[in-house]
Parts: sequence; C-alpha cells; structure tokens
Amino acid sequence: MIAKTPKPPYYAVIFSSIRVDGDNGCSEMTDRMVEMAKEQNGFLGIESARNELGITVSYWRDLNVIKQWKEGAAHSMAREKGRSKWYKKFKVRIAKEGSDYSGLKENDEHTVHED
Amino acid sequence: MIAKTPKPPYYAVIFSSIRVDGDNGCSEMTDRMVEMAKEQNGFLGIESARNELGITVSYWRDLNVIKQWKEGAAHSMAREKGRSKWYKKFKVRIAKEGSDYSGLKENDEHTVHED
Repeated sequence: MIAKTPKPPYYAVIFSSIRVDGDNGCSEMTDRMVEMAKEQNGFLGIESARNELGITVSYWRDLNVIKQWKEGAAHSMAREKGRSKWYKKFKVRIAKEGSDYSGLKENDEHTVHED
Repeated sequence: MIAKTPKPPYYAVIFSSIRVDGDNGCSEMTDRMVEMAKEQNGFLGIESARNELGITVSYWRDLNVIKQWKEGAAHSMAREKGRSKWYKKFKVRIAKEGSDYSGLKENDEHTVHED
C-alpha cells in the first residue's frame, strides 16, 4: 500500500538494504519493528518493497519520534544480533518532505484506476 | 545496488506505485527515464524495488536538476500516454536529506559482509 501521509512537512526514513541468503528471523524482526513504529504517536505510515535490493520508507511527523523509535529498534536489534545475520549492506537516510516543492511534484496520491 | 550518494544535503525523489497487470512497455520507459536521469549533471543515483508495491528513490544534488529531469520525463510520459497504462496508483514525494541528523542515523553505508 502507498502510505497515506499528511500535508508536508514530515520526515522520511529511507532504509536500503541487501540481504544475506535465508531469512534467519528477519521477517519476524521486521514485523516487530513495524509494530513498534505503529505504536509511536507521530508515525505516519510505511512502504516496503524488495527484489535483490530492499527499500523500506517510513514516514514520521518529527525527528523526535524517529529518535524514540530508533532507540527502541536498536535495543531490539542488539538483543537479536540482527544486522550481521540479515544484511550484507544497508544504508539509512533521513530526509524532510517539504511543503515548498509544489511546482515540482503532484500534490497528492494519484489514483489512475479504481480497484 | 545501494546508491553511492555524497555527503548531505541532497534531495530524494520517492516514487511509490502500484502497477496494473502486464508490462505494456513500462520497463522500457523506466529504463529510458533512468537513462535520462543519468545524463543529468547533478543526478546522484537511483534505487528501485518492487513487489506488489514499487518504490523507486532517485537522488539529486538540487531541486533545479530534478525540475529539468521531471520536465523531460513528463514530456516522454505524455508521448507514451504512460501513466494510465502502467499504474493503478502512484505518489511522488520530494524530500531533502539533511546534514543535521547525524545523531539519528548511521553516517554512511554499512558493509556487514564483504562479497
């Protein structure tokens, strides 16, 4: 699903990763991270896709909420020794969706075909 | 591949989409858009993944470069009547990767396992 985000400004956390072979509990951990995100007041939505490369973009109201989530997530990750079991490589980017790019992009989600 | 982006600030264009069934020339068009992007001075990289949802994130030095690319892309799209052939829904977000989130994220790509 395409996340239903509010009017900007808000923040996007872009997590790009290349997995090692095998799940090794990664799906379960990912589900848990998403659950943790949803419990945060200020979490706005998440989008995820994977082929060889995986991209997960989560959307947030402000940096403080991201920080809280990240600390909880880091704690769980450390407990699971997760990253080295799951990822060959990963990169985290945090970016601010501004409200001043209206000349550059469509204002909202486009529904081309109704289901 | 995870894009090798420079030190922030730079911009991310996050294109999220749900496809209609069948390719209908979409792959070819996507390849052409990526080629057009690579020809732009100021294009920094691109990452793409798709399951049911597709996410393509392209990275750019500044908003002007995005504007130029977008105009060229819109022109090609119009010629191909592309969007209605390819997408059920899509959303474009533009966000600025800042340099002030260093407490919040890892500074660069993490290689957990060398190939």
